Amino acid sequence: MQQSFGKYATLTALVDQETAQQLMPEYASFQVTTGKVGSMDLKKVISSVETAAKRNGIINGEVYRETHALYHAIIEAAEGVTRGKLSVGEIMRTVGLTFSIVRGRPYTEDAEGEWIAVCFYGTIGAPIKGKEHETLGLGINHI
Amino acid sequence: MQQSFGKYATLTALVDQETAQQLMPEYASFQVTTGKVGSMDLKKVISSVETAAKRNGIINGEVYRETHALYHAIIEAAEGVTRGKLSVGEIMRTVGLTFSIVRGRPYTEDAEGEWIAVCFYGTIGAPIKGKEHETLGLGINHI
Amino acid sequence: MQQSFGKYATLTALVDQETAQQLMPEYASFQVTTGKVGSMDLKKVISSVETAAKRNGIINGEVYRETHALYHAIIEAAEGVTRGKLSVGEIMRTVGLTFSIVRGRPYTEDAEGEWIAVCFYGTIGAPIKGKEHETLGLGINHI
Amino acid sequence: MQQSFGKYATLTALVDQETAQQLMPEYASFQVTTGKVGSMDLKKVISSVETAAKRNGIINGEVYRETHALYHAIIEAAEGVTRGKLSVGEIMRTVGLTFSIVRGRPYTEDAEGEWIAVCFYGTIGAPIKGKEHETLGLGINHI
Amino acid sequence: MQQSFGKYATLTALVDQETAQQLMPEYASFQVTTGKVGSMDLKKVISSVETAAKRNGIINGEVYRETHALYHAIIEAAEGVTRGKLSVGEIMRTVGLTFSIVRGRPYTEDAEGEWIAVCFYGTIGAPIKGKEHETLGLGINHI
Amino acid sequence: MQQSFGKYATLTALVDQETAQQLMPEYASFQVTTGKVGSMDLKKVISSVETAAKRNGIINGEVYRETHALYHAIIEAAEGVTRGKLSVGEIMRTVGLTFSIVRGRPYTEDAEGEWIAVCFYGTIGAPIKGKEHETLGLGINHI
Repeated sequence: MQQSFGKYATLTALVDQETAQQLMPEYASFQVTTGKVGSMDLKKVISSVETAAKRNGIINGEVYRETHALYHAIIEAAEGVTRGKLSVGEIMRTVGLTFSIVRGRPYTEDAEGEWIAVCFYGTIGAPIKGKEHETLGLGINHI
Repeated sequence: MQQSFGKYATLTALVDQETAQQLMPEYASFQVTTGKVGSMDLKKVISSVETAAKRNGIINGEVYRETHALYHAIIEAAEGVTRGKLSVGEIMRTVGLTFSIVRGRPYTEDAEGEWIAVCFYGTIGAPIKGKEHETLGLGINHI
Repeated sequence: MQQSFGKYATLTALVDQETAQQLMPEYASFQVTTGKVGSMDLKKVISSVETAAKRNGIINGEVYRETHALYHAIIEAAEGVTRGKLSVGEIMRTVGLTFSIVRGRPYTEDAEGEWIAVCFYGTIGAPIKGKEHETLGLGINHI
Repeated sequence: MQQSFGKYATLTALVDQETAQQLMPEYASFQVTTGKVGSMDLKKVISSVETAAKRNGIINGEVYRETHALYHAIIEAAEGVTRGKLSVGEIMRTVGLTFSIVRGRPYTEDAEGEWIAVCFYGTIGAPIKGKEHETLGLGINHI
Repeated sequence: MQQSFGKYATLTALVDQETAQQLMPEYASFQVTTGKVGSMDLKKVISSVETAAKRNGIINGEVYRETHALYHAIIEAAEGVTRGKLSVGEIMRTVGLTFSIVRGRPYTEDAEGEWIAVCFYGTIGAPIKGKEHETLGLGINHI
Repeated sequence: MQQSFGKYATLTALVDQETAQQLMPEYASFQVTTGKVGSMDLKKVISSVETAAKRNGIINGEVYRETHALYHAIIEAAEGVTRGKLSVGEIMRTVGLTFSIVRGRPYTEDAEGEWIAVCFYGTIGAPIKGKEHETLGLGINHI
């Protein structure tokens, strides 16, 4: 059985870590970091998450395996944000996002090992304040 | 300025409507319905949301304009669920989803009118119990 | 310089061959065929165009090269019809289409040889009469 | 029943507004504007249509709802132009396009309200004059 | 530094395991299995690879982590086979494929752990013998 | 029946032309050229192959028909390399590729004429040395 660490990651990005812990206290042992990024450049969104994950010890940046797992989780979350078109500025839109990264053992079986979740929540829209709506994305991978 | 009715829809799908209302009481006036669907067939997922929306009066099924707005919101939410490949059974995976549909006026300006949000939360994976992980998607459209 | 045989194919699908010839009489030497197909099954749409092209001698069905050229022109036209999601029934929608196939020499240079154009025009929408809007697609390939 | 205002938009982009009105006089009450754009940058194509729509009063640029409806119609039309890969310069190709934007009430039922159509017609190809073929796209949305 | 176990997997699918071992003897310690599948149904292609991997002990089918790693490697290889449209029969084409699955430690650093490669080689085309051309795809994932 | 000139192109990119000729001596009459390109810019990858093909007489750059055939073969090969997302630098990754281009008559029937194959083999990954894995793509078109 899988524990809902993706829900935990989403509540953290959507509301805040405190609320996530109150609603789901059993995830206290999971590693969590959060950040914010606003850009028309998807590359900058991706590198913001990677930098936050490395600086806060969520992944070991020296190991490609961990970089690879995180990268694909970020891309999957970005698919939700961009909804079928993995582009932002190229198609004249901009994003303002809060993100959370959560790492831990969501399965009760030891052999399932560690997994990573990335959640983005924020706005997407025209590059003009207010001409935007909310957007959300969640990516999950084994690490 | 936009109110976060997408967050409200997400909390409803992720936790439940009661928790969503406690955390965001200012959305009491929005119309909400929820449902569940499990399938390898994306068509069935789409029609479950459409049926729930019509039965519960979230949209007027007689008006194509409303059907069209809802359809595109569902597809955008499904892009998040399927992360870049709008297929389920065709690529040998299955989904088990809770969904919420929220309709209301998230902008303070009257001219912005009504908008609709669809959120899916649940699992995606191999068609074998437990061989799956969480998935999430949010779609928003003007109606 | 290229002649606008894609425009000729589009006018044929959009209005009819007579109007196309009145507006663009210089294309009288191009081979043209038209047909109609309504389906939730993209496979059936593709095979209707292939069958019409073979039956009416637009392509030689014995030669893979010609089948290959036509197939890719059809798929490109279908991308316009489905707008970014090459699916119909799988995502709960249906199409009712008129199509035209045009073959000829649109370039003044002899070395450019023959090209083929496929145009679809019709409706796409919910599988309920009237719950639909127009759709269009054009594919062009060398043959 | 839907009137064919997408056909009207296509004839306008493909031939010209005068011919469109001769062939379809019943659309005289629809709002129409046209423009031209050539670029390797999809962002510039999108913003040219948005600017033309706002300057000519087709949409009210102050209302996000209208910007949102137009944006998705443009993106759908661009899917037809780029046929499955929403990129231009990034994959070493360039476009030269005429576009039309049409706004009106294509359904006989009052409740269906206003809709918007965007049509692109022109060429796509290598960034060398003559190394190109025709391309077409139509997007339709409720507004 | 990474060893070229993807090349080893490709030579195995393209020619045969014996030739692969002669050209690249240093991969003798990698686990390899091969199989064949012909279908219009992508689901059947995916499940053939999964079944071969489990039956031959390449992955432990009891552990979701391993199923998840293999699944994404298969999907990435299938993207190469289908070239941008993850569909076979739905768009009226069929595949006849040989596949190889290779598991091992391609990096010299111990921390990089095990990785898996899936390679498909064969034909794709119209569902008529001879109306087809070659196709290839390689997917790689950490496991 | 089709000869396996795609396999010949792949062996050339994967190992080298000498090995390809030893394993498949019957392809001595096919035209072959190879090259290398490393970039975060897909446009540069595409233009490197186009330039190599023109400089080495694989295609006649004066004829659009040949440019068009090569372009689509390159894009199909690039779909395999990028696996479902035709982007490199925009999503924060880089490629280092060897490519081969092969032109000839792979079918025994004269009417099938000439075809072209493009194969890429190399690495894709984070823009940091060693944080990458192998990647492969094959595109085939009639010319």
